Amino acid sequence: MSQKTKQIAGNMLIAQSGGPTVVINQSLVGAVMEAKKHKEIKKIYGALHGIKGILGEDLIDLGRENVHTLQAVANTPSSGLGSVRKKPTPEDCAKIFEKLKKHGVRYFFYIGGNDSAETTHIINEEAKKAGYQLRCFHIPKTVDNDLRENDHTPGWASAAKFVAQAFMGDDLDNAALPGVKINIVMGRHAGFLTAAAALARTYPGAGPHLIYLPERPFDVTRFAAEVKKAYQKHGRCVVAVSEGIVDADGTPIAAAYTKEVDSHGNVQLSGTGALGDFLVGLIKQKTDISRVRADTFGYLQRSFPGVVSENDAKEAFAAGREAVRLATSGDIDGSVAIRRKKGKKYQVHFERVELRSVAKETRHMPDAYIAKNGCDVTKAFLDYAAPIVGQLPKIGRFKKIKVKK
Amino acid sequence: MSQKTKQIAGNMLIAQSGGPTVVINQSLVGAVMEAKKHKEIKKIYGALHGIKGILGEDLIDLGRENVHTLQAVANTPSSGLGSVRKKPTPEDCAKIFEKLKKHGVRYFFYIGGNDSAETTHIINEEAKKAGYQLRCFHIPKTVDNDLRENDHTPGWASAAKFVAQAFMGDDLDNAALPGVKINIVMGRHAGFLTAAAALARTYPGAGPHLIYLPERPFDVTRFAAEVKKAYQKHGRCVVAVSEGIVDADGTPIAAAYTKEVDSHGNVQLSGTGALGDFLVGLIKQKTDISRVRADTFGYLQRSFPGVVSENDAKEAFAAGREAVRLATSGDIDGSVAIRRKKGKKYQVHFERVELRSVAKETRHMPDAYIAKNGCDVTKAFLDYAAPIVGQLPKIGRFKKIKVKK
Repeated sequence: MSQKTKQIAGNMLIAQSGGPTVVINQSLVGAVMEAKKHKEIKKIYGALHGIKGILGEDLIDLGRENVHTLQAVANTPSSGLGSVRKKPTPEDCAKIFEKLKKHGVRYFFYIGGNDSAETTHIINEEAKKAGYQLRCFHIPKTVDNDLRENDHTPGWASAAKFVAQAFMGDDLDNAALPGVKINIVMGRHAGFLTAAAALARTYPGAGPHLIYLPERPFDVTRFAAEVKKAYQKHGRCVVAVSEGIVDADGTPIAAAYTKEVDSHGNVQLSGTGALGDFLVGLIKQKTDISRVRADTFGYLQRSFPGVVSENDAKEAFAAGREAVRLATSGDIDGSVAIRRKKGKKYQVHFERVELRSVAKETRHMPDAYIAKNGCDVTKAFLDYAAPIVGQLPKIGRFKKIKVKK
Repeated sequence: MSQKTKQIAGNMLIAQSGGPTVVINQSLVGAVMEAKKHKEIKKIYGALHGIKGILGEDLIDLGRENVHTLQAVANTPSSGLGSVRKKPTPEDCAKIFEKLKKHGVRYFFYIGGNDSAETTHIINEEAKKAGYQLRCFHIPKTVDNDLRENDHTPGWASAAKFVAQAFMGDDLDNAALPGVKINIVMGRHAGFLTAAAALARTYPGAGPHLIYLPERPFDVTRFAAEVKKAYQKHGRCVVAVSEGIVDADGTPIAAAYTKEVDSHGNVQLSGTGALGDFLVGLIKQKTDISRVRADTFGYLQRSFPGVVSENDAKEAFAAGREAVRLATSGDIDGSVAIRRKKGKKYQVHFERVELRSVAKETRHMPDAYIAKNGCDVTKAFLDYAAPIVGQLPKIGRFKKIKVKK
């Protein structure tokens, strides 16, 4: 590869897409800070609200934001540039490419999930067709943790920490006022975030006592029987349910209760309490348990400030930095993937992977992480998740030395 | 008052009642630690699940828990002794009193809200009737902040901090993906917790853009018009709605959507997403806004570990300690009330008040805290709430210097 090819001079454009996370700005700032070190990168532009901002030329000059602001934004939840849920048409992609060319953009970075990787891939192909050297990189992000090629995805571990802490507190609440408590957790097709509820078990008998994932068919009759059994055993029952649970035919349990569809053709699962309320009704109907409640954790899972996994924040920043390093290393494109090093100590490294290998399709919880009974996780999952999620609050409990009656 | 009366020797019993908070164990441990200093207090008993544990003689020996455990429990959310929602009958109260006498209890402490104060009051009257010296103290607790005689109540400020942080993150989420976002906040009759959402406004244009409290009649037509107006102004709209909103006749808006009633005769408002989903349907029906979502914060507001107001934790501990100091100071009974000292610097002191003055009835947001338009709070409320709630996470935002099209 010639030095000339390696050092193509031009402007950079970065944008954010899909559901926000508490660390998505770490990736953005990681990329911007790295870009400032590379002379071949001239202007550093940010597009507002993803590709919508490119199409409308709604760009801001990130190179003129000072370091103090950049650091403050890095530590702030949600997408600092705004986001979008828009699947571009081939015509959109052609137009986006024209706008990038018009603004002298040679480095393009898109932070998001598999839909965003696909968008990046299509824009990249468009540039290739036109013979325009555009270095396109996708930077991974998703609380669902469902990107292929990655050991885990920036955003997931912090959301997982929120879910685990929420279950820790809610389990103690349920222990104080016993009953059945069902909590609906985000995750359209992959159960990783719901599974993280298991990290909340810090004492014998702690909830969640049952965990339902989209990877296993959900049966309403079996569900009621399992809740009843756990309730009889513990005198109470805390349940983690993925918003994405499906029946044996693959139909989302929530589908009958909500009709909204986003621009990627997905059924709306978040921002409604319908699934939780349905499951409460089911337990009340099929058992004689009187105190049955549901909470839907909703958007708090992905945007709550102050509950951040340290490793997640660091890795999100590094993923952004890595994308710029790769893009400036030669005429290449791709996605930055997080890989975990083997060994006892938790360590990760980054690898470039092909855009098409993370686009479109998603990954699911491997079988080894799901308990045989279908309503729990395994130790292998806990070993996988715990070091990424990091330290959780300590729980104190009385020894409860009984007084003679 | 004679020294003999002052120093009646006997055992102490303490219990927790009603909805848990993240600092209710601070009050418990504050009382236990103080009791250990008083020679006239012999055994320190805890009843499991409030008066239910007294009736069933389900007692534990708190005097045998070590300091390390006590400190760990103090920093743990939810009621370490378990809780109960049980309104005792006069027969129950007579029986409770018999159990207290049987176990040589001369000091009785009950941590809870106005219902718990009433229970304490009735037990106290029962003891007086029998001529048995029982020093009964109620220790305040409620995330609703609706106890009379108190400037504010232990538990509220930490829940308020959770609500404020949740709105900070959710507002940024809504700014990234604009639409209407409705968040349902706890508070059956008092709007203090919902009002705390206003603390989330840390930049011009920040949400919540509308705040609906139980203290003002809720009109569905006006609500839709106000949401539409705010949406037109900001291009988005974040709304804080109390679960306890009522119509002009005083009927809860949630009443038609839920039928459950607790043992105090109250309609179930928490543990269901029905109110939020109803309001989403309303906005979709009455406006042409397409992205409308609701989250119900639910039990996380009162039990999320790690999100604690420092002042709240300190004051909750001090309230427990104060109750024991008062009870050992003479043959008196009452409730410990938090009063705020006048002046710029935030300072509180504790006062003994009569049990009947905090029992049964609750207080509401004063008019001075509610904006004239009925859908916001005033600066006076923010000045009241901010020092109790304490530090919130810092938010960073780009200057957004536009690039020429």
